Amino acid sequence: MTLWRSSAETGPGDAMLDFTSSLEQDRRLYPYDIRGSIAWAEALERLGVYESAELQQVVETLNDIKAELDAGELELDPELEDIHMNIEAELSKRLPELGSRLHTGRSRNDQVLVDVKLYLQDCSVELENGLLSLLKALLEKAGGEAGTPLPGATHLQPAQPVSLSHYLLAFFEKFRRDYQRLQKNKDELSVLPLGSGALAGSGFKIDRQFLAEQLGFERLSRNSLDTVSERDFMLDYLHFLTLLGLHASRLAEDWIIWSTPAFDFCRLDDKFTTGSSIMPQKKNPDALELIRGRSSRLLAAYQGLASLLKAQPLAYNRDLQEDKLHLFRALDAVSWFSLLPEMISTTTFNREKMASATEMNFLAATDLADYLVERGLPFRRAHNVVRELVEKARRQDKKLSQLELSEYQSAASEFEQDVYDFIDPVACMKRRDVYGGTAPRRVQEALDEAGGWLQEVNNND
Amino acid sequence: MTLWRSSAETGPGDAMLDFTSSLEQDRRLYPYDIRGSIAWAEALERLGVYESAELQQVVETLNDIKAELDAGELELDPELEDIHMNIEAELSKRLPELGSRLHTGRSRNDQVLVDVKLYLQDCSVELENGLLSLLKALLEKAGGEAGTPLPGATHLQPAQPVSLSHYLLAFFEKFRRDYQRLQKNKDELSVLPLGSGALAGSGFKIDRQFLAEQLGFERLSRNSLDTVSERDFMLDYLHFLTLLGLHASRLAEDWIIWSTPAFDFCRLDDKFTTGSSIMPQKKNPDALELIRGRSSRLLAAYQGLASLLKAQPLAYNRDLQEDKLHLFRALDAVSWFSLLPEMISTTTFNREKMASATEMNFLAATDLADYLVERGLPFRRAHNVVRELVEKARRQDKKLSQLELSEYQSAASEFEQDVYDFIDPVACMKRRDVYGGTAPRRVQEALDEAGGWLQEVNNND
Amino acid sequence: MTLWRSSAETGPGDAMLDFTSSLEQDRRLYPYDIRGSIAWAEALERLGVYESAELQQVVETLNDIKAELDAGELELDPELEDIHMNIEAELSKRLPELGSRLHTGRSRNDQVLVDVKLYLQDCSVELENGLLSLLKALLEKAGGEAGTPLPGATHLQPAQPVSLSHYLLAFFEKFRRDYQRLQKNKDELSVLPLGSGALAGSGFKIDRQFLAEQLGFERLSRNSLDTVSERDFMLDYLHFLTLLGLHASRLAEDWIIWSTPAFDFCRLDDKFTTGSSIMPQKKNPDALELIRGRSSRLLAAYQGLASLLKAQPLAYNRDLQEDKLHLFRALDAVSWFSLLPEMISTTTFNREKMASATEMNFLAATDLADYLVERGLPFRRAHNVVRELVEKARRQDKKLSQLELSEYQSAASEFEQDVYDFIDPVACMKRRDVYGGTAPRRVQEALDEAGGWLQEVNNND
Amino acid sequence: MTLWRSSAETGPGDAMLDFTSSLEQDRRLYPYDIRGSIAWAEALERLGVYESAELQQVVETLNDIKAELDAGELELDPELEDIHMNIEAELSKRLPELGSRLHTGRSRNDQVLVDVKLYLQDCSVELENGLLSLLKALLEKAGGEAGTPLPGATHLQPAQPVSLSHYLLAFFEKFRRDYQRLQKNKDELSVLPLGSGALAGSGFKIDRQFLAEQLGFERLSRNSLDTVSERDFMLDYLHFLTLLGLHASRLAEDWIIWSTPAFDFCRLDDKFTTGSSIMPQKKNPDALELIRGRSSRLLAAYQGLASLLKAQPLAYNRDLQEDKLHLFRALDAVSWFSLLPEMISTTTFNREKMASATEMNFLAATDLADYLVERGLPFRRAHNVVRELVEKARRQDKKLSQLELSEYQSAASEFEQDVYDFIDPVACMKRRDVYGGTAPRRVQEALDEAGGWLQEVNNND
Repeated sequence: MTLWRSSAETGPGDAMLDFTSSLEQDRRLYPYDIRGSIAWAEALERLGVYESAELQQVVETLNDIKAELDAGELELDPELEDIHMNIEAELSKRLPELGSRLHTGRSRNDQVLVDVKLYLQDCSVELENGLLSLLKALLEKAGGEAGTPLPGATHLQPAQPVSLSHYLLAFFEKFRRDYQRLQKNKDELSVLPLGSGALAGSGFKIDRQFLAEQLGFERLSRNSLDTVSERDFMLDYLHFLTLLGLHASRLAEDWIIWSTPAFDFCRLDDKFTTGSSIMPQKKNPDALELIRGRSSRLLAAYQGLASLLKAQPLAYNRDLQEDKLHLFRALDAVSWFSLLPEMISTTTFNREKMASATEMNFLAATDLADYLVERGLPFRRAHNVVRELVEKARRQDKKLSQLELSEYQSAASEFEQDVYDFIDPVACMKRRDVYGGTAPRRVQEALDEAGGWLQEVNNND
Repeated sequence: MTLWRSSAETGPGDAMLDFTSSLEQDRRLYPYDIRGSIAWAEALERLGVYESAELQQVVETLNDIKAELDAGELELDPELEDIHMNIEAELSKRLPELGSRLHTGRSRNDQVLVDVKLYLQDCSVELENGLLSLLKALLEKAGGEAGTPLPGATHLQPAQPVSLSHYLLAFFEKFRRDYQRLQKNKDELSVLPLGSGALAGSGFKIDRQFLAEQLGFERLSRNSLDTVSERDFMLDYLHFLTLLGLHASRLAEDWIIWSTPAFDFCRLDDKFTTGSSIMPQKKNPDALELIRGRSSRLLAAYQGLASLLKAQPLAYNRDLQEDKLHLFRALDAVSWFSLLPEMISTTTFNREKMASATEMNFLAATDLADYLVERGLPFRRAHNVVRELVEKARRQDKKLSQLELSEYQSAASEFEQDVYDFIDPVACMKRRDVYGGTAPRRVQEALDEAGGWLQEVNNND
Repeated sequence: MTLWRSSAETGPGDAMLDFTSSLEQDRRLYPYDIRGSIAWAEALERLGVYESAELQQVVETLNDIKAELDAGELELDPELEDIHMNIEAELSKRLPELGSRLHTGRSRNDQVLVDVKLYLQDCSVELENGLLSLLKALLEKAGGEAGTPLPGATHLQPAQPVSLSHYLLAFFEKFRRDYQRLQKNKDELSVLPLGSGALAGSGFKIDRQFLAEQLGFERLSRNSLDTVSERDFMLDYLHFLTLLGLHASRLAEDWIIWSTPAFDFCRLDDKFTTGSSIMPQKKNPDALELIRGRSSRLLAAYQGLASLLKAQPLAYNRDLQEDKLHLFRALDAVSWFSLLPEMISTTTFNREKMASATEMNFLAATDLADYLVERGLPFRRAHNVVRELVEKARRQDKKLSQLELSEYQSAASEFEQDVYDFIDPVACMKRRDVYGGTAPRRVQEALDEAGGWLQEVNNND
Repeated sequence: MTLWRSSAETGPGDAMLDFTSSLEQDRRLYPYDIRGSIAWAEALERLGVYESAELQQVVETLNDIKAELDAGELELDPELEDIHMNIEAELSKRLPELGSRLHTGRSRNDQVLVDVKLYLQDCSVELENGLLSLLKALLEKAGGEAGTPLPGATHLQPAQPVSLSHYLLAFFEKFRRDYQRLQKNKDELSVLPLGSGALAGSGFKIDRQFLAEQLGFERLSRNSLDTVSERDFMLDYLHFLTLLGLHASRLAEDWIIWSTPAFDFCRLDDKFTTGSSIMPQKKNPDALELIRGRSSRLLAAYQGLASLLKAQPLAYNRDLQEDKLHLFRALDAVSWFSLLPEMISTTTFNREKMASATEMNFLAATDLADYLVERGLPFRRAHNVVRELVEKARRQDKKLSQLELSEYQSAASEFEQDVYDFIDPVACMKRRDVYGGTAPRRVQEALDEAGGWLQEVNNND
């Protein structure tokens, strides 16, 4: 075990190279670095730095390098500090004179930003697809369950009946907001940093608009000092990922609890559970636990980048090399997109267990109070009457539906025979008949709206 | 000193009330709670819960209560748990029967959310105005300084000349993004939560669309379970505030360093500095230090809310009472809007000191290399030639402009007499003549664009 | 609503006083500030700065001021920046000449540190007492339950039987470590900062050893620059509080889940539950939820202080004014000591429900495998045999004890009649007969050790 | 770019293996896992699970596996979930029957904890050595500089003269506390978790005391449920690392500022600076910037683990797999021990520049006030007199030593000719003659004490 290379072994120069190299982290940027360099070379050609034929050589060689890197055939050298220097060095090895012209008017400060933005544009496509699969899985699962009651909880205590559809659509809404947050984040990803130079703007009259067009950016960053110093778009991205992870952690928490034998509201497909090295009976919801646990990585990454940026003088400081570390770690922490949609699709819900839990646990109490309110009692008094009825039932170990009418009437004379129908779980659900409520017809409308939206989004894609 | 009330003194019931009361925190919501309650009463009237005359009584009494709270004439009781219960209790004291009907079909779970959203809408107006003052102050300060050179830094080391305007506009861009982030956050603030009930939707057929219109919301939340459980709009807001605070911390850092006698690039007006209790010579940039330091509160608040939300089962849990604590603490941490615009306006910049620092510290080195590149040397070789020239000048304690032409020419034969004009700071600035660069004409364009934008935003306001 | 005072109303000078004043936060330090000032005055007398009679006047006047502050009879003025200046100003109002000598050789930089350390020493006594009550409550609850089986869980899934005592002692160990961490933190709290001056040491030959003795410190800080710049003892304290809060959050989580009707392993006393404003049947575990939720404040405070300290140049910076804010907020976040011990004492555990859950859920599976291992099967094979038996029982909806012997034997010929006794929950517990295991005799030993330790600690107190 | 493997390519089973595998992270534990397994095998032999010859086979084979892993000759398989399963599988491949017995009575839950503790014990030795090198470098640099004045700063503004030794010793104290915190953390690292089984204690009567002796642990964990659920020792470790990183970040900040041409107090050796890809004059303090920036990783790791632990039900949950990720990331973030000691040793301080900055910037002002206090003025009045003198000198662009005696005397009649000697920087330093002050004789005592302590610690090592 060695936490760090001792200077005795290697000499401080090597230790320094080791310490400052970011190749480990930025290796994944190579395709974007090459794309950015090709556009840069083209812009240089327009300035006369390259002849047309020279440009072609440069572009071809860069493409060769990319192909070799794709194929794993090219070794990178950590001593060359980062991915940018590695690629430039390789180019210069192959085209000594032309390669050495490529960095004309460019700085690593603007170069790395264009790389990261291109990378995040690609990540966004993947995350968008992941979110759409997830939304689709939730919606499909929710379909047809608008009348399936579930004991909706607050404080983890049974509260009021809601339908399984309504529950699943609650997560649909959370992840839909994530989808929309992702769209909003695209704005800043489409602002081109390249051409800002080290801090003051390129010293060559490079055509930034041309660069933007070549690379698919929509507008140019407005101030070079701001551009090389800011990482707002990264913190925006980490915020988006944090909320995404938090939403998933909440679904995980619910389903972990629901998978216990005590609740038994749902069963995960075997392929998403894991056994124990020692307890043969175990089917553990490991994937859900990891989804929950990994949300902590996102909190960590946000704090990492935010505290990195705090109080940094303008413009660029080497501290910023760490930005990518936090960003990439966060991106790696949502790899559960490969599992979660299918996990949702293959989970079975135990309708009987949910229904009996709905009836057992006084979930109609609110409605019972509303019953009295409708018959003229002020809300606060009705509330008190029902609390006493519930206590009476609890002491007798009865459901509300098992209390005698006389018991109801001795609590409040307004009660009549129709109270029994009134407190049926589905009747209770039907009564939440406001926009956004759990009434089956409202939920059906919500399912339709969600389906339409998803369709539209998929079409636009 | 007592960290907590001992149970011996008070009995556990009191300790429990003490512990669970949120009045301390949510007191500031009272105007919004009353606004929300008035709209709710109006909606109840449309359902027949109140007669028209009754409604009038309720509304008047609520307005009286507000006026008394405004005037500080009404005591609130922490034992009544929160601001909502306090107001309802006061109403019921004055109108026993009518007051007790007000909560019909409503839950504190949706009530508190509408209060917070109304509050944040008002905060947003204040923050918007604060940001506009700040942007105005930056822009005014930046005007007329497009030709004032400043030793732009990377790694805090002198790098290339930039103009003072360009520097100030860099912060204009950062805070402009904050302004825009604030606008984006308004979307979710305009979604009405009221009517979601405790979790399943109101049990009364309340007209949510009417509520939205009365309270100025643009659309209705789509799923009651999602609504009472989500705090995305709060974390979005904390993210916005975090970036805002981080931007300010960076300006603070720069200006604290620039206020040292060693740099002496700027001097804060005396009213923004503070003396020492012991050292009579001191003029400390306390306000800037506090702006920098308070950004840590924002990181804390974000982490507080994010970790609060992690792994919470649906729908509402009492943990969520803590959300407002983190939110309000964050809002209180940006109270520097009362100072920063004027601090910027009253700061004087030391043009001579900035100019001489620009000349002393080899900031023309990049241009010197570019000079050679333009005369045909490959970039990497030009870079090496200049590095040696700089070393030579350093050893002789000379500026680049003080080296002899012969010294230049012995380094590279491409050098000619025009090199001296070429490396003049303003010439260097002029050469960064790309969109977003520090060339005076580009900076003037940027000033114009910024001014136009600010005008337009102010007009729309 | 006003986030900040507008400069129009008040003039920037006032806004600056408002912004930089820390009185709101450091008000609670007044008794310590006065204690520190009395010791300082005594030390000045030994230097000849005060005559003996003058000293007496100063001391008496400071004591008067304290008495008036205790009684709430003295107004403090936020414009005087902080508690230190308020007290000195008040002293100087009463004793103009003598008061103005008090600050001789002292700086607020060392003064505030001695105040905070004295304050934390007092907090530590309270926290120590709180922890001891908590440990006592856990231990008393654990007594006599070494044979009460509980379905011990991993992954929230039933795993192996453990006794209720064993479970409660697990938390005893967690909080015992907190107690010990608190003790360790006392070391740095007993190092005297006073006499370090602003940064370079007092310019008067003050006797720091005398100060330490007067104020009850054990040793002197070794380096004045380090002293005024470091806040290690505060971050140590926040770390201690964070772990304390995390431990409590885990107990809360378990008991919230156990209080659901589905689990029903425990019932909180009514005084620790809360009803709903809308659902009359509710008994919500609000106090536990708040204990869980408030742990987020501790994470926030740690992050706040740590990011505050990051990259601060030596020695003192005004940013450090924020240290107390984070510290005090964290201390306020563990006010649950007023509730938790009694909540533990008054909770009733449902032995029947725990016992039946232990039998239902295959918790003997590990032992069944061990049975085979003892009879010669390799562990991994035994594990597989038992997994199949469990599957068979699950399909038939049987407990393990309800499978026929023939079924056992067809799975592995090693099974004999004694298997039924072997898998009895208490037998399983007895078999965990290692130090630290759940075997009743081991748990009894643990109870005895814990009791002895607690006795000893209480005696030393 | 692929953030996650699509289920189309691989089937969900593979995606699940991918997702849950921790091999990437826990690979570094293999030597400790093997050490733990050997001790376990020995304990099993004492129970009769292995014959003596069988044990020998198992031990030899495990040693072979370790040797092959050391040599990089053995491929590990991510599909086997973690390092523990990989090693057990490899053993079982070589010794099918014996290997399958090894896990008897053990769980991965206690196994992984013993691995991590053994690993951290080794890390602690390395960190201890790193800290001792660092302390030695600081002390050596500090030696002989007790009379070298430096403009000590508060608020980054010149405050009072301190010696270079005094400054360097301030960091000595910070890192000494880290050294001591590391020692305190060893307590919990020496508590053996092994034998706790999955949660309830091993079902076999394993001799835990024997295990502790074999593996060098000092005592046994007291409660199996606590043991498998707690990660306090990890958070303690992250807290230690966080403070360590924060201390280094502050040294970095100071030296980055001091390396600017404006300050020029110190020059880093060339091997610790880096050039620019575009600006040939640059010598950037990259290593210091990265030391500063990487402290953010530590804040991130602390938050990551703390939020992971929050609200976890007992005992083990799969979320805890993430603990090592945060821990290892934090350990990797202090790899600067390979550089920092030598960077300190090779930095040269610019005595002239520091001296002239000391004289220029009114650092004697406090002493000037003290001069008047000694001659009878009350402190607050003396302070005002001096403030006016400083203003006068500032207006005339003079040092304090350049004001005429008549000017002094017109400010306060107490001034006499001796004032000029009184305000000499070294005289000022000499006057801070309290324990911990910057007076040269005090600093010499501090150097001696530090040297003695370091000697002693090294001897004990």
